[in-house]
Amino acid sequence: MIDDSIRPELGIIGGLGPLASADFYVKLTRMTEALRDNEHVPAVILSVPQLPDRTEAILAGHDGPLAPLQAAVSTLNALGVACIAMPCNTAHHWYDQLAANSRAEIIHIGDAVVAEIRRSLNRGRVANLATRGTLVSGFYQERISAAGFEHCIPENTEFQERVDNAIALVKAGSIAEAATETERALHLAQLAGADAALLGCTELSVVAASLNDTNGLIVIDSNAALARACLTRLGYGIQEARGLPAVSRLPGQDRLPWQRAS
Amino acid sequence: MIDDSIRPELGIIGGLGPLASADFYVKLTRMTEALRDNEHVPAVILSVPQLPDRTEAILAGHDGPLAPLQAAVSTLNALGVACIAMPCNTAHHWYDQLAANSRAEIIHIGDAVVAEIRRSLNRGRVANLATRGTLVSGFYQERISAAGFEHCIPENTEFQERVDNAIALVKAGSIAEAATETERALHLAQLAGADAALLGCTELSVVAASLNDTNGLIVIDSNAALARACLTRLGYGIQEARGLPAVSRLPGQDRLPWQRAS
Repeated sequence: MIDDSIRPELGIIGGLGPLASADFYVKLTRMTEALRDNEHVPAVILSVPQLPDRTEAILAGHDGPLAPLQAAVSTLNALGVACIAMPCNTAHHWYDQLAANSRAEIIHIGDAVVAEIRRSLNRGRVANLATRGTLVSGFYQERISAAGFEHCIPENTEFQERVDNAIALVKAGSIAEAATETERALHLAQLAGADAALLGCTELSVVAASLNDTNGLIVIDSNAALARACLTRLGYGIQEARGLPAVSRLPGQDRLPWQRAS
Repeated sequence: MIDDSIRPELGIIGGLGPLASADFYVKLTRMTEALRDNEHVPAVILSVPQLPDRTEAILAGHDGPLAPLQAAVSTLNALGVACIAMPCNTAHHWYDQLAANSRAEIIHIGDAVVAEIRRSLNRGRVANLATRGTLVSGFYQERISAAGFEHCIPENTEFQERVDNAIALVKAGSIAEAATETERALHLAQLAGADAALLGCTELSVVAASLNDTNGLIVIDSNAALARACLTRLGYGIQEARGLPAVSRLPGQDRLPWQRAS
């Protein structure tokens, strides 16, 4: 099925969405301590944007995405990968069923995020900018609480609306506009007393490098966390990623000035 | 081997180098006229950074990269792709052998680049910023001349040294420094009377968005050209990519001021 000379170590289920997995690939590459091509992780990205929407399925209580996700896991196993990463938080709703049918270890993005939070915080309140599907699934509430942090969703209904807008804008390719929406959600998170904010949807990871100064609020990027976890698991050296992609400021755009939470 | 529900249309031989193929994936995604995940191209990226260096092989006159490239083509065919793209110019030295053994059409980056040049120029001199391997291979000289343009390599030996430096810097992850080297090569190209400059190595495509104003010199990005050719071939709508990733300016860096060629 695949020649040993080109066997991938890491399998990536991508396309959920496509820009989020491209961002993951950029971060995986930039974070690898490497000076030459052959010091990088051999990998395969199976980009499956044709999958049913994950949040719609969770909210409607059906498992439409599970069968194609299982097919992707099977294909990556057939290609001989050692580990699998899914740069899509919402898809982790089906993690247990997928992991039960995979020889290759599937690295859980929630575990990667908890390890990432611990790099910058000992305790405190973590606001989660995630899809409504991820929030209903509940794996972040469980993991973040078990790790001794407080999982928080600001009560102001504007918060989730801004998050939903930002995710949709990234999927439509409007990154600068998505950064503005994300900044407003981060501001509401800080007003709600959050010490850190988790970009708990990989679409929001796409805008991470385009955010204005966040006034001391620690921002956790789930894609970067997952990339770090993959490199650690596979034994690659890690460097702090320099100059991750950012988009230009929008000319004349009304960017929210940061105010210190009282 | 692969379930119809997740079958990829486009196969990508990536990792040559990894950042160049991540750049290709970003551009393919950003250039697709799409508002939702499922309007994007289902694709598979086989990232094979473990391949022998292409330029070294060409300069030494051996075919070390051919067997693993053929293995990658076979695997992508087994996954059922309709087309294959190689976001590595130098690897096209072995195009004929690869295409002869592939059911899926391999889209030649040289053909994509000629189409891209024609979008902005009717005739004139095109300087090629490429690896020494690509230049020895000669497929650009042939295609660009056949299309009625003049293929040019500035005689100043500094030109190729700057190009080589820039490529090595991107492979080492130093994008802002690579942009500076690329700008100096572009400046020498303009002094040599070029109307357009081809970033004829996909490592240089990585810095395309980070270049300073190029003083009227038309810059052709081979990765963007290949992405456009793939989307056209597969029947996807194309949009001008907005806000492609750029890196921050280097503080205090000596960036070359552009001077009009006399």
